[in-house]
This record gives sequence, C-alpha cells and structure tokens, in this order.
Amino acid sequence: MEDDYQVIESQRQFTGEVFSVDLDMLRLPDGQTREREVVHHPGAVGIVALTEEEEVLLVSQYRHPAHRFLVEIPAGKLDKGEGPASCAARELKEETGAVPKMWTKIGEFYTTPGYSDERFHLYLATDCEVGASSLDDDEEQGLRVVRMALSEAIQSAREGRFEDGKTIVGILLAALYLEA
Amino acid sequence: MEDDYQVIESQRQFTGEVFSVDLDMLRLPDGQTREREVVHHPGAVGIVALTEEEEVLLVSQYRHPAHRFLVEIPAGKLDKGEGPASCAARELKEETGAVPKMWTKIGEFYTTPGYSDERFHLYLATDCEVGASSLDDDEEQGLRVVRMALSEAIQSAREGRFEDGKTIVGILLAALYLEA
Repeated sequence: MEDDYQVIESQRQFTGEVFSVDLDMLRLPDGQTREREVVHHPGAVGIVALTEEEEVLLVSQYRHPAHRFLVEIPAGKLDKGEGPASCAARELKEETGAVPKMWTKIGEFYTTPGYSDERFHLYLATDCEVGASSLDDDEEQGLRVVRMALSEAIQSAREGRFEDGKTIVGILLAALYLEA
Repeated sequence: MEDDYQVIESQRQFTGEVFSVDLDMLRLPDGQTREREVVHHPGAVGIVALTEEEEVLLVSQYRHPAHRFLVEIPAGKLDKGEGPASCAARELKEETGAVPKMWTKIGEFYTTPGYSDERFHLYLATDCEVGASSLDDDEEQGLRVVRMALSEAIQSAREGRFEDGKTIVGILLAALYLEA
C-alpha cells in the first residue's frame, strides 16, 4: 500500500543546523494530490540513567521554544554518521558525566510523525558512575544535573510533573522494564 | 532565570499550513549569543478512547514523513482559537465516529522542546459509543479505525510495537490512570 503514495515534487524551504523543511506534493492512491510539510531531523536519543542508589540523572536546561527551564532525561541528536548507541553514550557522558555499567535499548519511535521524520531511540543505562561532565560550548544553556529518586520520577511522570514527552515515556518504559 | 534569555532578532524562514519556522538569535545570561531554530506549532491533542468492551480505538493512516502506515491514537492539531477539550471531541468524532460518556485529561507536555513549541494535550475518553466517522477530505490518507483490546495495547506499548511516541505515552498513562 505504501507504494501507492508518490512524491511528485519536493521543494526545500529551510536548511538549518538542527533540521530542514521540505514542502512535498504527494500523489494519493486515488490520484488526487496533497501538499505536505515535512521537518527532516537526523534522529535523536534519550537516556534513562540510574545510579547504584536508584536515582535517575535528569538535566534541567533552558528550552527556548518553551521560554523556560525544563527537566528532562539526557538527550541529544545524532551526529552525521553516528549510530544511536554511540550517541547515547556520548550524550550521557557530556551532559551528566555518567558512565553506566549496562545499556539496554527500551524503545524506538517517531516523536511527531504527522509532520516530522525524527526517530527517537530510548536507552536505559544502569549502575552509572558519575564523573565530570564535558559540555560543549553550544550546550551550555544553563544545563544542570538533577538527581531524583526513581520512585519520585515515576510518580512525577504519572502525575504530569514532567513537561517533556520523551521524559514521560522514558521513565514509564524504564519502570516497566525494571519491574518485569 | 528565564528573564535572562532574550531574543534579540527573529527571522521567519517558513510559513506553512501546519507549522512555521523562525531563526532566532538568543542572548544568553553570560552575554553570548546563539542561533536557535524553532518550529512554531499550534498545539495538538490525542485521545485514548475506550469502548464499553474495553477496546481502544486506534487509527491506521499513511504518514508521509515515515513513508508508511502507522497505528496511532486519534489525534490532531488545534484549529485557530480552538481549546484542547473541544479539539479532542472533534478529532475523536471525525476520525473514529466515537462519542464518549466521560472525558479525563491525563497529560500535557511538549513533544520535542529542543526545537518546537508544540504542546500536546492527552485525554482519556471512556464508554465510547461508535457511530459513523466524518473525515474531511484532507484527512483521507487511507485512515482506518483499528480496535484493539486494552490489555493488548498495553503490551504493545511496553514491547515497542507502536512506532508513535504520543501513542506509547497515551496508552501507558491511561493504563496507570485506570488501575489507580
């Protein structure tokens, strides 16, 4: 069925450092055409990182689109040619200084498939030892590590105290994985 | 602290029907400047809709950014001036024909706060009676209603069989709400 949807024209509208935007003309199976706006994104990773004391390592940082600080799981986008597992190890180390004993992939999904091709890879990192973080200059948006007991993080995810989608899904999937 | 981050220049890069894109110059608290790409989105809703038989009403539709059909909770973006509760009732009716006896808001979050201001409102709709759907022409991207036992949907969310982030978080939050 997928073969019945054909892009008959594609025009680049914006090329940025983080994402680009195309305006595509799509031919539907019935022959009609529709315009579709698409954000192209390299993909990203997020990490639910636990210390040996059952604390989750979160980061608080200024998010310009939200005009405020949000508390989220460590995350970042894939560099060119970088695999998601390497990216996860790099981002976790950069943002929190943590090196885990074990990695488990616990999820993979589109963040907003209606208009973006961003694919998100979710990892659980356990028994983290926390050293110094190594933020690059461009990530210094007031980033600060927040340690939270896993039980409190689960409660926060359930009760709507996190404002970031990937953080909610990450904490809930990690909790289910750990109790299974 | 939020006051220390100032937009000193903003340039519209793209204006679409679904979203627009700005390139902003942001002044950080230390006086340095950074460019930030921002997707502006009107916000969206998603609905975990349950029938009296404990089935979840899902929709399968062609998602151009993913180049394939995805199974998701019913969802849609806010019309101009529309509140999220009205939007949820409208989208649910349009996409599935369902009218629930009860609505509960079970979540609200940013989908991708690193680069987009899209805020997502999540609802649980219970005891749905299912009539005829009323899709507008532009939503006919092969949309088909899929009924799935709630227990199977929860298993699917846990085991990575859904490929859409909002569907995973919706099903997991609904399950927690219903068992609480």
